[in-house]
Amino acid sequence: MPEFSATEIKNFTKDQLKNLCERLREKVKSTVMHNGGHLSSNLGIIELTVALHYVFNFPNDKLIFDVGHQCYAHKLLSGREDKFDSLRQRGGLSGFPKREESEYDCYNTGHAGTSVSAALGFAKARDIRGEDFNVIALIGDGSFNNGLVYEAFNSLRPLNTNILVILNDNGMSISPTVGSMHEYLEQLSRDDVHRQKVEKHSNIFERFGFSYDGVYDGNDLDCMIDKLTEIKEKLKTQSVILHILTKKGKGYSFCEEHPQQTHGIAGDEISVAQSYSEVFGKTLTELAATNKSIVAVTAAMTPSLGLSDFFEKFPERAIDVGICEEHATILCASLAAQGLKPYYAVYSTFLQRSFDEIIIDICSQRLPVTLCIDRAGISGEDGETHQGVFDLSFLNMIPELTIAVPKDINELRQMVIASAEFKAPLAIRYPKECNTVFESEEKKLRIGSWEILKHGDGGVAVLACGERAISLAYQVSGELKKYGVNLTIVNARFVKPLDVDTLNSLKTKLIITIEDNQLIGGFGSSVSAYYSDNKEVCVKNFAYADKFIPHGTVIELAEEFGLSKSAIVDYILKNAVR
Amino acid sequence: MPEFSATEIKNFTKDQLKNLCERLREKVKSTVMHNGGHLSSNLGIIELTVALHYVFNFPNDKLIFDVGHQCYAHKLLSGREDKFDSLRQRGGLSGFPKREESEYDCYNTGHAGTSVSAALGFAKARDIRGEDFNVIALIGDGSFNNGLVYEAFNSLRPLNTNILVILNDNGMSISPTVGSMHEYLEQLSRDDVHRQKVEKHSNIFERFGFSYDGVYDGNDLDCMIDKLTEIKEKLKTQSVILHILTKKGKGYSFCEEHPQQTHGIAGDEISVAQSYSEVFGKTLTELAATNKSIVAVTAAMTPSLGLSDFFEKFPERAIDVGICEEHATILCASLAAQGLKPYYAVYSTFLQRSFDEIIIDICSQRLPVTLCIDRAGISGEDGETHQGVFDLSFLNMIPELTIAVPKDINELRQMVIASAEFKAPLAIRYPKECNTVFESEEKKLRIGSWEILKHGDGGVAVLACGERAISLAYQVSGELKKYGVNLTIVNARFVKPLDVDTLNSLKTKLIITIEDNQLIGGFGSSVSAYYSDNKEVCVKNFAYADKFIPHGTVIELAEEFGLSKSAIVDYILKNAVR
Repeated sequence: MPEFSATEIKNFTKDQLKNLCERLREKVKSTVMHNGGHLSSNLGIIELTVALHYVFNFPNDKLIFDVGHQCYAHKLLSGREDKFDSLRQRGGLSGFPKREESEYDCYNTGHAGTSVSAALGFAKARDIRGEDFNVIALIGDGSFNNGLVYEAFNSLRPLNTNILVILNDNGMSISPTVGSMHEYLEQLSRDDVHRQKVEKHSNIFERFGFSYDGVYDGNDLDCMIDKLTEIKEKLKTQSVILHILTKKGKGYSFCEEHPQQTHGIAGDEISVAQSYSEVFGKTLTELAATNKSIVAVTAAMTPSLGLSDFFEKFPERAIDVGICEEHATILCASLAAQGLKPYYAVYSTFLQRSFDEIIIDICSQRLPVTLCIDRAGISGEDGETHQGVFDLSFLNMIPELTIAVPKDINELRQMVIASAEFKAPLAIRYPKECNTVFESEEKKLRIGSWEILKHGDGGVAVLACGERAISLAYQVSGELKKYGVNLTIVNARFVKPLDVDTLNSLKTKLIITIEDNQLIGGFGSSVSAYYSDNKEVCVKNFAYADKFIPHGTVIELAEEFGLSKSAIVDYILKNAVR
Repeated sequence: MPEFSATEIKNFTKDQLKNLCERLREKVKSTVMHNGGHLSSNLGIIELTVALHYVFNFPNDKLIFDVGHQCYAHKLLSGREDKFDSLRQRGGLSGFPKREESEYDCYNTGHAGTSVSAALGFAKARDIRGEDFNVIALIGDGSFNNGLVYEAFNSLRPLNTNILVILNDNGMSISPTVGSMHEYLEQLSRDDVHRQKVEKHSNIFERFGFSYDGVYDGNDLDCMIDKLTEIKEKLKTQSVILHILTKKGKGYSFCEEHPQQTHGIAGDEISVAQSYSEVFGKTLTELAATNKSIVAVTAAMTPSLGLSDFFEKFPERAIDVGICEEHATILCASLAAQGLKPYYAVYSTFLQRSFDEIIIDICSQRLPVTLCIDRAGISGEDGETHQGVFDLSFLNMIPELTIAVPKDINELRQMVIASAEFKAPLAIRYPKECNTVFESEEKKLRIGSWEILKHGDGGVAVLACGERAISLAYQVSGELKKYGVNLTIVNARFVKPLDVDTLNSLKTKLIITIEDNQLIGGFGSSVSAYYSDNKEVCVKNFAYADKFIPHGTVIELAEEFGLSKSAIVDYILKNAVR
């Protein structure tokens, strides 16, 4: 007998529903403390989730979570209680909505701002197919800064369909929410609700065709049930935006007091790794003290990028634009066009949003913007939508861009120092954690140069970029020693352009490439292309399979999806000419 | 002695300025009629451009054109008159702003919605560096639909700097402007200006921190000079949005009456080519008559994509979202998630904006959306920002996506027909013009299959995708016959996945790939990777160099940047084992 059941709760009394909220809160809290995951946002939304399941009829009605990290209570209420202990573990429940997991998850999300567009698509499809159900987008005020939301709002009237947008306003994305829309929402929260209704056209959302209803306490279960019941009727004839305030971390005082630190937490496992973000932030802050051209730009995740100190010390040269990766990119390009030296720090997966602007605004103008790409490679438990495994491929194909991949935190520091004098577009990509620091005698890094870490007997050379790949190369090398194979290991720290001088100096017949990236179009692909019509040299690429990589630990996923020591050892043993 | 000079006009009388407008109008018109280019938008903005140059001090002040296609009068007024006859020709003036061309062009544009972000970057850089100049973004109401504009507006207050945004409202992008923002602008135009000023907070733009001033007649030179003079003072203490109405095609009655058809015109050269867009549109419209699941989605360029007829016949299944490529992509994904069969038609270069959404929303959910990618390959006279040479690379690296490249209009038709039954993400990419229709005996196309067009003697095989590449393969083949080399030619019409059965059946020692795309990460790159550790087969890729390709004719650019018959012939003669 399940403890939480969506069909059951339709018959619950108010007291039973409140008790359910407490039990859900406890379950979410204990699971996340153990498994890691998004804590404070999920705690804040328990009452709303229960009210939604009480009032609406899922999965017939459609609920689309923006970003999707706040879906835990929804998962518990929709038949996934028995698997909830496996949250974010390989083979277990995803921490995000997944169609393949349950029919209660109608649309997969992970990146910000997509929910209103998706809700419009579901509603429009319903109208075209002559179906009858309600469509709800649940979006936080952080996502609300994203231009996609405006694009969707702007097309509500032309699409001529009805949806409910619930604006879950807690004043935060990962960083506190910034911008005029946020100020406007705050103003609405302060204003008297009834006055707002009278001045109908003064409300921005009404201009876009929504009936606006707010502001209400989203942690007040009774109020949420009443409001949703009322709005469910309204939805037959119009689109509604329901503006609610919730308390991030609700019901767990430590979270309530530290919402930024408890947005995502790590769980039981204790990591002894060092942080690339911290080294990046520390180095940039040092440089900025004397180099007054340096500007740091982020999109709503300043602390996770190691830049809190920079923002405190140089507020006039620190810009957080909110969850607006495209705008951030253009801002950097134009700052550079006017003579400054901007650093755009961003997670690999979110940089995908800036693809066009990296091409047109930064690279086609050859502007000296530095992209500091954090959480590159497999990032682990957040799954498909958060793996940073595409960046080497989508950056590699852009003309005029130099791409650097440090082997450890010390080399990241050297790269950031070298970048300050570099006069063209540069990308530096690195993962979250540094587990190995390699020995190196180099004092100063030259942009574009590779480094031979280990000279072998000339038979087989391994070109590896990034810590995970280089660590693996050493493991493979150690294993192969037993078989009398003595590998050359090269730190291919510049993926573009290739260091062809070093490449040509190798004179081996078999080259193995290893990278923490998608197989197609990345580093290995460039090396293969370089030797493509050369009969003397065989190249074998090891990288991640051309697949979406689900959630799990970084180590198990890397092994499973392509960076396997035994596979590389086997390949070399079979193919090395001795 | 130049006819148009920005420094001269500071001393002009009003009459002289008006006369200048007429001469500029005549010069723009006669040049565009001859060279091709953007006509009606440039004619509409003559008075504003003259007023800007009269009131402001460029290049010290910064003028950023959104998209940038409306910069012709600005170019004439900023010392480029002597080169204006070379507009859009190889080595001549670009039809878009180019920093490398003149210091009067401070920022290169080409894709919509970037100007406000860029203006904020320039203004912020000015403040940081303690400089003193004005920054102006000039943006049309079509671009105003793009989410980037909202992102920039939202960060005006946090950035705490002053810019002028001129909203040039002519009711059009390439298609008529759609959406609630457009309706709102229309409402402002109807409202009494003074009433607007009193109800300060009812204006959306004021909420974002702008002082709003409008609506004025942008074709009234005196009015524009007065307004800009007044606003120039205001800019010392605040940001201003100036809302003006202009007449697209002003002063040329044919353009005024047909603004959509004269947005971009072709010039003197008469093309006898057939249109891929038309065949695509016609086929989809036929299919949609019986297949009620088919929906067509565009982003503000319905007629240029061949979809006017579809939109007329099936308005309930036709969606133009305005210049919102990201939103359009998610809309397609969610329509597909609810059981429909959406086709998103878009120019290759603008699809770059949808990169993240293609990965996350379409492909990671494996939804059966068909991307119909027009203007692929080198598109010609619009230059760097409009070449469709990256799509095969940025699509190739996305898991779960099938990529089709028809060899001619007939094959495009077959691909569209086959797509209707295809249950996964599919991209079909094609150029604007079909110059060659190849013979084919095939009745029905199987998704994933290549076609051997010509069996050679087994020595050398050319794998080519798309009309330009296949035509070139035939030319090379003809030339090589003289030397006794008998090529095999394969129509590699599916770039992903590779048709490995056909590939393996070739049994040649030398494979040549040709594609109308960037060298890195595209089709050839996949073939090279396939044979990377196979010593028996050499692969040589011919594709466009890893460079930004400027403006010029398609034919001269293709030859110059990598698809050269003589280079391929030479290579084969040197490397073929006979």
